[in-house]
Amino acid sequence: MLDPVALLARKRDGHALAPGDIRALVDAYTDGTVPDYQMAAFLMAGFLQGFSDEETDALVDAMLHSGEVLRLDEVPGKKVDKHSTGGVGDKVSLLLAPMVAACGVPVPMISGRGLGHTGGTLDKLESIPGFNVNLTVDEYRQNLADHGVVMLGQTAEVAPADRKIYALRDVTATVEFIPYIAASIMSKKLAAGLDALVLDVKTGKGAFMKAEADARRLAETLAGIGNRSGTPTVAYLTRMDAPLGRAAGNWPEIAETVRCLRGDTDGAEDLMAVTMALCAEMLVLGDKAADLDDARAQLADALDSGRAYAKFVEMVEAQGGDASTLDDPDARDGYKPAATVEADTDGFVVGLDALTIGHLTVAMGAGRKMKEDAVDPVAGVVMHAKPGDYVEKGQPLATLYTRRHDRLDEFREAVRSAYTFGDAAPVLLPVVIDRYDATGWTGLR
Amino acid sequence: MLDPVALLARKRDGHALAPGDIRALVDAYTDGTVPDYQMAAFLMAGFLQGFSDEETDALVDAMLHSGEVLRLDEVPGKKVDKHSTGGVGDKVSLLLAPMVAACGVPVPMISGRGLGHTGGTLDKLESIPGFNVNLTVDEYRQNLADHGVVMLGQTAEVAPADRKIYALRDVTATVEFIPYIAASIMSKKLAAGLDALVLDVKTGKGAFMKAEADARRLAETLAGIGNRSGTPTVAYLTRMDAPLGRAAGNWPEIAETVRCLRGDTDGAEDLMAVTMALCAEMLVLGDKAADLDDARAQLADALDSGRAYAKFVEMVEAQGGDASTLDDPDARDGYKPAATVEADTDGFVVGLDALTIGHLTVAMGAGRKMKEDAVDPVAGVVMHAKPGDYVEKGQPLATLYTRRHDRLDEFREAVRSAYTFGDAAPVLLPVVIDRYDATGWTGLR
Repeated sequence: MLDPVALLARKRDGHALAPGDIRALVDAYTDGTVPDYQMAAFLMAGFLQGFSDEETDALVDAMLHSGEVLRLDEVPGKKVDKHSTGGVGDKVSLLLAPMVAACGVPVPMISGRGLGHTGGTLDKLESIPGFNVNLTVDEYRQNLADHGVVMLGQTAEVAPADRKIYALRDVTATVEFIPYIAASIMSKKLAAGLDALVLDVKTGKGAFMKAEADARRLAETLAGIGNRSGTPTVAYLTRMDAPLGRAAGNWPEIAETVRCLRGDTDGAEDLMAVTMALCAEMLVLGDKAADLDDARAQLADALDSGRAYAKFVEMVEAQGGDASTLDDPDARDGYKPAATVEADTDGFVVGLDALTIGHLTVAMGAGRKMKEDAVDPVAGVVMHAKPGDYVEKGQPLATLYTRRHDRLDEFREAVRSAYTFGDAAPVLLPVVIDRYDATGWTGLR
Repeated sequence: MLDPVALLARKRDGHALAPGDIRALVDAYTDGTVPDYQMAAFLMAGFLQGFSDEETDALVDAMLHSGEVLRLDEVPGKKVDKHSTGGVGDKVSLLLAPMVAACGVPVPMISGRGLGHTGGTLDKLESIPGFNVNLTVDEYRQNLADHGVVMLGQTAEVAPADRKIYALRDVTATVEFIPYIAASIMSKKLAAGLDALVLDVKTGKGAFMKAEADARRLAETLAGIGNRSGTPTVAYLTRMDAPLGRAAGNWPEIAETVRCLRGDTDGAEDLMAVTMALCAEMLVLGDKAADLDDARAQLADALDSGRAYAKFVEMVEAQGGDASTLDDPDARDGYKPAATVEADTDGFVVGLDALTIGHLTVAMGAGRKMKEDAVDPVAGVVMHAKPGDYVEKGQPLATLYTRRHDRLDEFREAVRSAYTFGDAAPVLLPVVIDRYDATGWTGLR
């Protein structure tokens, strides 16, 4: 018999809770037996007293079993997904899913929407006219079986406890706690029927985990949950100081994705470095490559041969998107530059602040401040100069796409404030920092 | 503008909150703007991160101003009350109020009901047929003005925030935290119009604060709140290992009170020691005695002259009680011994466990397990042997008063288990341990 007050007192006093107690509490909260105020006190007690790995696993287990746990057994092969903690200009998922699928590893990708200063894969996909991210569970399975790739939003049946707990954390100052963050992510991922998972944990100015130590702890916690649960999980620590690639915003990022999949990766070297690292890991986890070098060779071939891009087009069409808009992304209806921002000095770009660019794209209409906000599919920014580039005064730094013409001065100012210039070429730090698997931090291979 | 989540995050992270923020939060919780779940998370964060004196004072101030703050200015003299943290056989209030009033210090005493293993002064008073503890604020003032003493329950208008917060603490494992305990007590006391306050903080097996260090911290916190708020407050630390006096239960304690006020204090030496210490302090605080020795002399005279007992009878009549029942308490309707428990060995009584006796009286019907439970006014136990007494096998240890005759074997067993015997007379520790005032711990004077 669950005694919520006794359980709260034990957590409050720093004692470890038995997995069964945590499961009983989460179950009772999900079905409404335990009220919000007791769960709120529990979440705060856990935040301050800490959660052991065993307790975190129990939390994940309870949350993932609070709703439907999908099975993809009838789809042959090892199903591998990727999750990112969120960045600016982060269109890795859009490139990665077709690239990996083109190499024969099924990718059942469940993504989120933009919130705060980061974009969301679902919003980007929906900027393709007609693209449907709201699939049923049957459509999810069928699309994966037919095309080897499917990209969709969370289905309502998965992990209802997570939605309820997340909403409570949001109003009780218990969001920024790694075990809760990790449990929220992993409960949904583990309920989706995956065989393996790759994580992109970002650190830096434009990441949620700005400090590298915090990002490392999050990576360890996330991968630990996956590996202990029997879902092999590898985490990459990647840098999110500057936006990835040149574009930020929904359609601008689709346009850049198309360009990269067609072989034009100019200015997207950082983006491709992250994408290749994660894709290669997925091929190994999916038993389609002997090692990371083999995987990279297969991925290069999928790109060079056009198979990766063809897979992207196939997926767009399979999910109702108008693939003709991809032929010339710049010609999409309503996608018109509103302004160009020029450099007001000569010099090397030594910094381009991802957080500033992220907030700018939201302000231009590409993101949402509240969950209910609609997004402008074509708003965004394309950056012509990236860290390491030399620019001359008057040279274009960025092109702005927005319907909010009355705020262009503010947007121009934001772009200028995002750039920092210096007299010497900066030393560019590698974007992929480290790799974590069941054996610990391994360094890059 | 109150931002509850930001405020929660500051408390969570261990930062001190400004008094204005605490007041705003309590006000918003009292009026329903802040929901239970945010207050629950706040209470847990405060429990774990601590409350400074300044924060505690702000909490008290917000709670006491959440309802009506009574004024007793029209009653001449300094009004002094006493509060006890609760014990077994603790009829100090019943003796003290008329004794102090008989010496000219007005005593406006707001008391509570029994809960858990301890009795409540209101339940004891209500065992006098007709006694009314539910007075209006006007009756409270008038009785105090006319008789110099009034004993009543909390009026609904006082400190509604305390009631709401207490109910939430009860279900969120945030009860046992000294700043919250102290704020709950002091907000009600400071809202009652007192000029000074004496506290009886109990420690030992039958006290809520079993460890002396905890009881000392509670005394310091309670007296600190009073003294900083401008209400001179003195706390006594007293021992609650064994019940005070011989009786536990409502009418049994009234009977012992009557006996002591009439001068028969046999077996109630511990009770009288605590009562005299607190009463003497109240006479000094009420400006009716030059020092504690002077006060003790006046109190002895009030007892010896019969004025204290007369004041008790006057109060009983003023509040509707049938004073004729006091003439021979043992003759009260329904007050019949159900059983006598005899010693099953020869020896010295070396211990008499107050907690066991407290639970026994509840089981016999004298207390309540839930707030809604009715109490049996005549149930209780009278102990014929106390620590230090020598008993022979077969000699009566205690008389049981209860209507629950089917459970007499269990009650007998409880009495026997409460007593411990030894071959040598025990060293009896003094019941009054220490004294705390605005200057700190002073020792006894």
